[in-house]
Amino acid sequence: MKKVFVFDVYGTLFDVYSVKKICEEMYPEMGNKISQLWRKKQLEYSFLRQLMGNYIDFFQITKDALLYTCQKLNVEVTEEKLKKLVETYDHLKPYPETLDVLTALKNCKKVIFTNGTYNMIEKLLKNSNLHLYFDEIISVDEIKQYKPTPMCYHLVVERLQVGREKILFISSNTWDIAGAKNFGFQTAWINRNHEVMDLIGIEPDFIYKDLTELLQHA
Amino acid sequence: MKKVFVFDVYGTLFDVYSVKKICEEMYPEMGNKISQLWRKKQLEYSFLRQLMGNYIDFFQITKDALLYTCQKLNVEVTEEKLKKLVETYDHLKPYPETLDVLTALKNCKKVIFTNGTYNMIEKLLKNSNLHLYFDEIISVDEIKQYKPTPMCYHLVVERLQVGREKILFISSNTWDIAGAKNFGFQTAWINRNHEVMDLIGIEPDFIYKDLTELLQHA
Repeated sequence: MKKVFVFDVYGTLFDVYSVKKICEEMYPEMGNKISQLWRKKQLEYSFLRQLMGNYIDFFQITKDALLYTCQKLNVEVTEEKLKKLVETYDHLKPYPETLDVLTALKNCKKVIFTNGTYNMIEKLLKNSNLHLYFDEIISVDEIKQYKPTPMCYHLVVERLQVGREKILFISSNTWDIAGAKNFGFQTAWINRNHEVMDLIGIEPDFIYKDLTELLQHA
Repeated sequence: MKKVFVFDVYGTLFDVYSVKKICEEMYPEMGNKISQLWRKKQLEYSFLRQLMGNYIDFFQITKDALLYTCQKLNVEVTEEKLKKLVETYDHLKPYPETLDVLTALKNCKKVIFTNGTYNMIEKLLKNSNLHLYFDEIISVDEIKQYKPTPMCYHLVVERLQVGREKILFISSNTWDIAGAKNFGFQTAWINRNHEVMDLIGIEPDFIYKDLTELLQHA
């Protein structure tokens, strides 16, 4: 039986740093700093809320992380600006190879598995015309828990009704790869920027420089 | 009844960035970068291991975070150098006011509560002559869980046999303050560098620029 391709979204199919352009327009010469800290805090807040047992959804976390970023970097922030910046998350850019790879995998089952809410992901996929390429969308919001807890990856096997060993999980986030492999998925780490793997006791099964190399599993 | 003063260690009583000097001697002009990334990864690895349910103790996490840091920053690393750097954690510098504040709180119950192992903390306290100032030392290593999970803060009330509302918890780490307050402790955030509080739904009860302001609770 063929593997099921389960994709993370943010940083894997879509470039979270593509918000930089709009940040830069709004706050000249701050685009890079804002986009970096925003993403860093977004992840950190999802981890911390999970650890404390204080779930709020990823849309709210994304807003909180942005607000913190503006306060920390001391840039002027209005309701209108915040709204406009948060809406950039509906228009993130897919990576250059994303569409071609999804097209080439047409005979394979392709699933999205994300920390994002269904509402966030549906908008993002529609705006990039990628919504037709996926068989299923699974959001952790269904169980109000965040990756990389084992119960999140368990949601995938529960929803897909396949054994965990049938899943090839694809992410550019080292902690997501670690969580997925820790649960028993096969894992492909998309390492676009020649990063060093985090030393948290778990190594990916495959390391690819972009999504194209996934095609050998088709 | 007086409050029990429960102190976090790393970043609160002792300056984790005091490793910078030795990093700088070993790797000229890299001391700042190494000490920053080392601490960042140390925290991140404790969060991620807790989320995945893959506990290893804080000494090993500190070593892993350092090794990652050296690999990421592309500095030459030998067993001997690693050993020497990790040993700096036994000789972190207390903040300038730490000793005076502990002395002034002589009639109050003072407890240490840390992610560090008993071995790490005992060495650190002895090397700085602070071991005589504390009534108890509590390490999360006892339950193999990391802060800021509620079960960690629960260990404190279990060990001290006092109600959670009797505890004044002191930390310079925003996530530790959030976790402690989330559990029901009163909290004092030591904000030495005019940082912005993280937006994770919880505000400290008190915000102080250093430990000295704690004396009003004596």
